[in-house]
Amino acid sequence: MDCIFCQIIAGKIPSYKIYEDDEFLGFLDIYPRVKGHTILIPKKHYRWTYDVPNFGEYWEVALKITTAMQKAMKPEFVTYVTHGLEVTHAHIHILPRAKGETSFVPEKKTFSKVEYEEVAERLRQALV
Amino acid sequence: MDCIFCQIIAGKIPSYKIYEDDEFLGFLDIYPRVKGHTILIPKKHYRWTYDVPNFGEYWEVALKITTAMQKAMKPEFVTYVTHGLEVTHAHIHILPRAKGETSFVPEKKTFSKVEYEEVAERLRQALV
Repeated sequence: MDCIFCQIIAGKIPSYKIYEDDEFLGFLDIYPRVKGHTILIPKKHYRWTYDVPNFGEYWEVALKITTAMQKAMKPEFVTYVTHGLEVTHAHIHILPRAKGETSFVPEKKTFSKVEYEEVAERLRQALV
Repeated sequence: MDCIFCQIIAGKIPSYKIYEDDEFLGFLDIYPRVKGHTILIPKKHYRWTYDVPNFGEYWEVALKITTAMQKAMKPEFVTYVTHGLEVTHAHIHILPRAKGETSFVPEKKTFSKVEYEEVAERLRQALV
């Protein structure tokens, strides 16, 4: 299967993982809109978020990550976006937002490997 | 309370309601980004979606509306967005999307009262 998210799940492509359980995986977006921009996916391949059978539980995991972001990053608020045209594997974008960030989805940003590692580690610690 | 969504819940401000249960209310956005653009809110006032205690159930209701949209409107896909800076009452945007709509959130559109009524009725019928 050439789905990039399935390859991340299989460990064939590296990712900055922050959360994992039997059914879901959370990792940092490599095309982030904000620092801490997280992607949450089901481990089983579904086309759209609303195809995931335990949809409520899927969002409960998004809530866990949100709570960890609040603890680790003190964002003003957190935005959820699901769109899904670029990668055809269900995913929820979870974006910790700073005060004054009024646009729904900010422009893409670039972070160094060190910055990725640092924020991923903070989120992982907050999820323990 | 001068929250506009609380006033919609109280029936003091009219809305194109499409869904209602004991805890949640779904109605058409009056500043729609697409035809059928729906807002789903908890009846109790919370600041952010992730403050809603039964967060998973809240999204299960969003899924019901999604399923109704698929039945009534045959969208290519459905987008969810939560942002929440304009109205300080938790809300989920549910957007039925057409093929080729690549932007996360399209520009605001204008529909006639008849068009609103027509799409609201189609969604209500699909939710029965």
